[in-house]
Amino acid sequence: MNVTVIGVGLIGGSMALGLKKLGIAHKITGVGHQPNSLQKALALNLIDEELPLNEAVKNSAVVFLAIPVDASIGVLLQVLDLVNDKQIVIDAGSNKFALCDAVKDHPMRKQFVATHPMWGTEFSGPEAAVNDAFAGRACVICEKEKSAEAALNMVEKLYLDLGMHIIYMNAENHDIHAAYISHISHITSFALANTVLEKEKEEDAIFEMAGGGFESTVRLAKSSSAMWAPIFMQNRENVLDVLNEHISQLRKFKASIEKENMDYLVELIENANKIKRILK
Amino acid sequence: MNVTVIGVGLIGGSMALGLKKLGIAHKITGVGHQPNSLQKALALNLIDEELPLNEAVKNSAVVFLAIPVDASIGVLLQVLDLVNDKQIVIDAGSNKFALCDAVKDHPMRKQFVATHPMWGTEFSGPEAAVNDAFAGRACVICEKEKSAEAALNMVEKLYLDLGMHIIYMNAENHDIHAAYISHISHITSFALANTVLEKEKEEDAIFEMAGGGFESTVRLAKSSSAMWAPIFMQNRENVLDVLNEHISQLRKFKASIEKENMDYLVELIENANKIKRILK
Repeated sequence: MNVTVIGVGLIGGSMALGLKKLGIAHKITGVGHQPNSLQKALALNLIDEELPLNEAVKNSAVVFLAIPVDASIGVLLQVLDLVNDKQIVIDAGSNKFALCDAVKDHPMRKQFVATHPMWGTEFSGPEAAVNDAFAGRACVICEKEKSAEAALNMVEKLYLDLGMHIIYMNAENHDIHAAYISHISHITSFALANTVLEKEKEEDAIFEMAGGGFESTVRLAKSSSAMWAPIFMQNRENVLDVLNEHISQLRKFKASIEKENMDYLVELIENANKIKRILK
Repeated sequence: MNVTVIGVGLIGGSMALGLKKLGIAHKITGVGHQPNSLQKALALNLIDEELPLNEAVKNSAVVFLAIPVDASIGVLLQVLDLVNDKQIVIDAGSNKFALCDAVKDHPMRKQFVATHPMWGTEFSGPEAAVNDAFAGRACVICEKEKSAEAALNMVEKLYLDLGMHIIYMNAENHDIHAAYISHISHITSFALANTVLEKEKEEDAIFEMAGGGFESTVRLAKSSSAMWAPIFMQNRENVLDVLNEHISQLRKFKASIEKENMDYLVELIENANKIKRILK
């Protein structure tokens, strides 16, 4: 089977590696608008060739989209215009509502499966692609009833073969959950990095003392603006809702410390500890 | 050499394991006010015996304090009243200024070495103690000029033997850096957990979708209130300073998203990315 990967970065590149390793893809064609990036993907053996979008899609059984969410709507419409009812199109972006909404009336909508494999790292580009990336993680599939059964079955099998477990959601709920669980973590981490960079002028101290929990909390702050800025902007209503709540939670900590109210501070921390119940 | 560990939890227990493994301590005596905890420490072979503070100190060459910062001032004064000028007292708490200030005029101040080994996990209690905990991390030693040379040399060697590298700071600067690098990370993480617990009523979704970066950002939210509430309260001036900056950084993200100002949002993220320069 030939597979086209549009956007051979962290996610697309890791998907390419997975599909090759599993023997699902015999040839992988890379598509992208950054020639440098495609050259790197070729050099790293993530893809076997690079072609313009039209040609690549024509020769592929599966088209996998892994580009920033502000670009994916236009590209997905373009791809759906090109495919026949044997070809399958998958998207892996972090928001699902706007995209699903944009293609809902397309005559080839049923060839499209809207997914969100819940994996990522703070790195980006083809160099960031890794083997066995998705194993053990959840993959959200949205609006499965709008995909053709054959397309859905194929995509479910593909993610299961990669070691993922599948959750089904409507696109609107997906975006709410993603704001709570993924998007706010990134904003927190970016803001924490900016806080420390603003306040802590002794960079040696950051470097030397970072053992105290800082490193894991700020890890996501290394993430790419090309990927994340469009995610926040597109999912803005949900993101603002959670961000307002987060600021108000931080204000509670501030108030408890300002007023030296130890009982309240302990209560806030003990409430946070309840996250243990949910995460191992 | 006999060593007394006061507070056999995450830090004290891990220190006990390290001192035994290196052959530095031949006998470890545990002191604490929670009988359950001491029984667990005995059962886990972290300590060889448990004794009341006075007796334990009398028989020990080194006394290692690893208790919450609100308790450590009183206990350190008590210990310094008991020691002679051959005995060495070490504290490992996360704040240094209040403690150093409280003992600055004690006649045995020179037997005390104020340290902060920059290691920890989100777990607590004797069960949380691990082998090789401190290797590769920094240990801050404060006010080294106020410790006797023999005491300082012994403590430096002990931390070096554990695989740590040593940084020297005055206590005031230590507490500022600790607020920037460690304390604010914990508050952020606690507040993030509270945000998600408040907003996300579908706990299954948190559990299933947590792959998206949430888990590492919220990890510290499992940390103990007994340890952290007193740290924040004691270092309140520095903590509030950084917390105010953090809230204002989050407001910038909010403003950029509310106003759909993509350039500003990208600028905020790219500024945060500069943390790469400092952390690997």
